[in-house]
Amino acid sequence: MFEAIDHVGIAVEEIDAALETYTGTFGMALLHRQRVPEHGVELAMLAAGEGHVELVAPLASDTPVGRFIGARGPGLHHVAYRVADIEETMATLRERSVEMIDETPRAGALDSRIAFLHPRGAGGVLTEIVQR
Amino acid sequence: MFEAIDHVGIAVEEIDAALETYTGTFGMALLHRQRVPEHGVELAMLAAGEGHVELVAPLASDTPVGRFIGARGPGLHHVAYRVADIEETMATLRERSVEMIDETPRAGALDSRIAFLHPRGAGGVLTEIVQR
Repeated sequence: MFEAIDHVGIAVEEIDAALETYTGTFGMALLHRQRVPEHGVELAMLAAGEGHVELVAPLASDTPVGRFIGARGPGLHHVAYRVADIEETMATLRERSVEMIDETPRAGALDSRIAFLHPRGAGGVLTEIVQR
Repeated sequence: MFEAIDHVGIAVEEIDAALETYTGTFGMALLHRQRVPEHGVELAMLAAGEGHVELVAPLASDTPVGRFIGARGPGLHHVAYRVADIEETMATLRERSVEMIDETPRAGALDSRIAFLHPRGAGGVLTEIVQR
């Protein structure tokens, strides 16, 4: 069902400082950078081989990522698995009683389609599925 | 420097319950299961395509993973990147002033050699490098 780890999402306070570490120190290539005001974030996608690291910075403290950082500090925020067919995967997960945050796929970065599972159904881990 | 996301480490309270979700609901194959008393954990490695999910359960509450769960609850614990040559990567990271937890590589699961970077040098993320 899950073909690969597509990316890890990392909550950071500020994108530029985090990019210094991830592009400068770790040598990852920056693929994409985008503000997504409707979700209250700025994000940067970096290459780690076939996988990606997604840095996510809150645009304000009263956003989901802002509250995450307020409660837990910066750090690992979510994991995303690549799937071949997101509708089919969502149907299978529903059959298995997995609670979804997104009832239908929505647009993700780099022309992907994404959906989030609720952490309750995944051992406390905010889990995303991605079709590229 | 980092060739792929090798695995994500997920702190769980109890391996068997987590395996029900990850093998049953998510359909991941269990590759390996091991108690590592010297690090106070039981771990299970699951396949997610070329990548892995590592479930880590504490053997007692006064262990690093036990304290992690006590403070933050179960959830994403670390991310590991695959490298071709762990000594060379560690030398490069040292040149770039990255603080390491492990000064020399140690044995990881499935015949790997691993080393942890300090979260301070990676935006609050416990980061591991793995040579397979």
